[in-house]
Amino acid sequence: MLKPTYLQQIKAQNPLVHNITNVVAANFSANGLLAIGASPLMSAAIEEMDEVPRISQALVINIGTLMGKEVSAMVLAGKTANQVGIPVVLDPVGVGATRFRKQTVQTLLKEVKFAAIRGNAGELATLAQVDWQAKGVDVGSGDADLAEIARNVAEQYQCIAMISGATDYLSDGKRQVQIHNGTPLFPKITASGCLLSALCGAFLAVAEPAQYFDAMLEACTAYAIAGELAAQPLSDTQHGQFYLGLLDQLASLSPEKIKQYARISYA
Amino acid sequence: MLKPTYLQQIKAQNPLVHNITNVVAANFSANGLLAIGASPLMSAAIEEMDEVPRISQALVINIGTLMGKEVSAMVLAGKTANQVGIPVVLDPVGVGATRFRKQTVQTLLKEVKFAAIRGNAGELATLAQVDWQAKGVDVGSGDADLAEIARNVAEQYQCIAMISGATDYLSDGKRQVQIHNGTPLFPKITASGCLLSALCGAFLAVAEPAQYFDAMLEACTAYAIAGELAAQPLSDTQHGQFYLGLLDQLASLSPEKIKQYARISYA
Amino acid sequence: MLKPTYLQQIKAQNPLVHNITNVVAANFSANGLLAIGASPLMSAAIEEMDEVPRISQALVINIGTLMGKEVSAMVLAGKTANQVGIPVVLDPVGVGATRFRKQTVQTLLKEVKFAAIRGNAGELATLAQVDWQAKGVDVGSGDADLAEIARNVAEQYQCIAMISGATDYLSDGKRQVQIHNGTPLFPKITASGCLLSALCGAFLAVAEPAQYFDAMLEACTAYAIAGELAAQPLSDTQHGQFYLGLLDQLASLSPEKIKQYARISYA
Repeated sequence: MLKPTYLQQIKAQNPLVHNITNVVAANFSANGLLAIGASPLMSAAIEEMDEVPRISQALVINIGTLMGKEVSAMVLAGKTANQVGIPVVLDPVGVGATRFRKQTVQTLLKEVKFAAIRGNAGELATLAQVDWQAKGVDVGSGDADLAEIARNVAEQYQCIAMISGATDYLSDGKRQVQIHNGTPLFPKITASGCLLSALCGAFLAVAEPAQYFDAMLEACTAYAIAGELAAQPLSDTQHGQFYLGLLDQLASLSPEKIKQYARISYA
Repeated sequence: MLKPTYLQQIKAQNPLVHNITNVVAANFSANGLLAIGASPLMSAAIEEMDEVPRISQALVINIGTLMGKEVSAMVLAGKTANQVGIPVVLDPVGVGATRFRKQTVQTLLKEVKFAAIRGNAGELATLAQVDWQAKGVDVGSGDADLAEIARNVAEQYQCIAMISGATDYLSDGKRQVQIHNGTPLFPKITASGCLLSALCGAFLAVAEPAQYFDAMLEACTAYAIAGELAAQPLSDTQHGQFYLGLLDQLASLSPEKIKQYARISYA
Repeated sequence: MLKPTYLQQIKAQNPLVHNITNVVAANFSANGLLAIGASPLMSAAIEEMDEVPRISQALVINIGTLMGKEVSAMVLAGKTANQVGIPVVLDPVGVGATRFRKQTVQTLLKEVKFAAIRGNAGELATLAQVDWQAKGVDVGSGDADLAEIARNVAEQYQCIAMISGATDYLSDGKRQVQIHNGTPLFPKITASGCLLSALCGAFLAVAEPAQYFDAMLEACTAYAIAGELAAQPLSDTQHGQFYLGLLDQLASLSPEKIKQYARISYA
């Protein structure tokens, strides 16, 4: 059973989370991190990639609107983060869409040790070399076993793998958990996945490596619950209100709320 | 009379719309595209400009915060889109403001065939070589005949030309239509024009070239109506609420609503 | 006593404010400038940095997500602005965080004459070479005398210095003013400081150099009041609603409101 502990530590420690993220998600991710009590720092400047991770407690790398010159910045930041031992999260946005994204993610996975990889089914299916009809940066469709894809990615890259969707799949290669909280409004707003990846960084920032799985589980459950509560008073066309309400709900999350609403199943 | 048909097809086909856009509009455009049922992909990386248009159903090029290196990415994406035959929309943001923007737009118009060009009066006046006191990226003022400017641009560049403003002017060089829907709140929020250009991409994505004029007319009318409905409950100082409400109204548009509220006049 | 005069002039003159800002703040700053009646132009393209300041009435330089290549664009824009005599505002976001930011700000302060520098306590403490435990781009903590830091920065760089916080400190090297308006929600949303820097540009744009101190005082007081009024109906977890409400309140500011709510103390 879920024992929420990391959200409180985020509020107590206010960890600095270094984000190399895309221009679509930058503002939303920063506001989301502030909402849960973390401190965002957005930077992709190669000139400071050997420094920012040293003052940060986590690094989140998101390739959503990646430009060529940023690959080396991501690698340098990742290597620096590995050196100083802070957790690194990868969000392989649209990795299946182009050769450039595939090659960039291959480079990142080769050069950097990731604590967690979070994406949608299409993105993790690509990492697991499973057939999937992805669609640009959207999930697309396929009939592969998502739990198996998550386990495969976790095992292959020795990290926590998380697949976001109607049901979320979390695995560390051995344990398998499914999160049933959430709302159909999540995929209706942009950067909702990117924001979760950023939040995962904050939860890992306050956890010991041995607890990364528990921290990721709390992060993903907390986020799904915040979305669920934000959607409750809304119709399915109130995208704008959901975009804002999600920030309000993230800011009002508590261990009690997470415990009360969590709907998790262990495989 | 307007027979709304394209919005339904967007919801049915969920077209992927490739946007090379500015950092101010990226998030808002992505959320707006999701709101009408399209699928946004934001990318300006030259490394994938020969690929993204091949998996997309439309390309939207917006020069709002253009950096020098992006010109070649825009050209490559545009040429690729022309090759595979998907529609390309140009939003010449602030083209009159600097030599760099003028030269970039000249290059784009020379190298790429555009299905539609959408901008404000000052921007299209610049393309029509008509005197106009533009102001940065804002409309500025002039007394030229806007219907004539739209016709001129459409004829000169063999595309659909659309001028946004209190009244919208649409022309394909022969037909002339004016759209009287809208709200004074549109120019009070940033990127409202950029978002319309992105939506035009989605409407063209589901239309045959012979129907591009009808698709643009539906796109611009639908958007003006969404703004009108979003503004209805608001005072003229509720900019923030309008910013969000517009997304909600876009998400709840329907052919019936468009038909009911459309105020169009044919010259 | 504060005699609000500049907000009216902004609404009358609609000054064009050139912003070289970060990707997190770009959209929010543009919407905030529109809300008070100014006209935003976001651009960091070196190709037009010798032109945009010539058509603008103020320039705001913000290093929040600075990339290496942008330094020369900032310098060129700043020099051009100095040449044509428009005010330049510096927002040294996270200047204490990395060598790259320190060096960039040193370069800017050497090459460009700033009318005003606005930042948080940690950022201005860094410029004043005062001990401070900054934290990434956040304020961090220290026990230095903030009024003295503001005076020191103003004197050292011959400009108006402004420190944002629970209490705002404003100085021109001789005069010292503290602004007591505001809300704890300001630091809970991203880019709230960046937006104020952008607004300072608009207020300076309509002021004579001899009145820059008064214009900055009105700008910072007006902004703090807008935040105060936006927060009034909200709980401390309604970050999203505050983000939007702030834009609505900025749009409905008036000289009367500023005069009515201003809580200022002169040292």
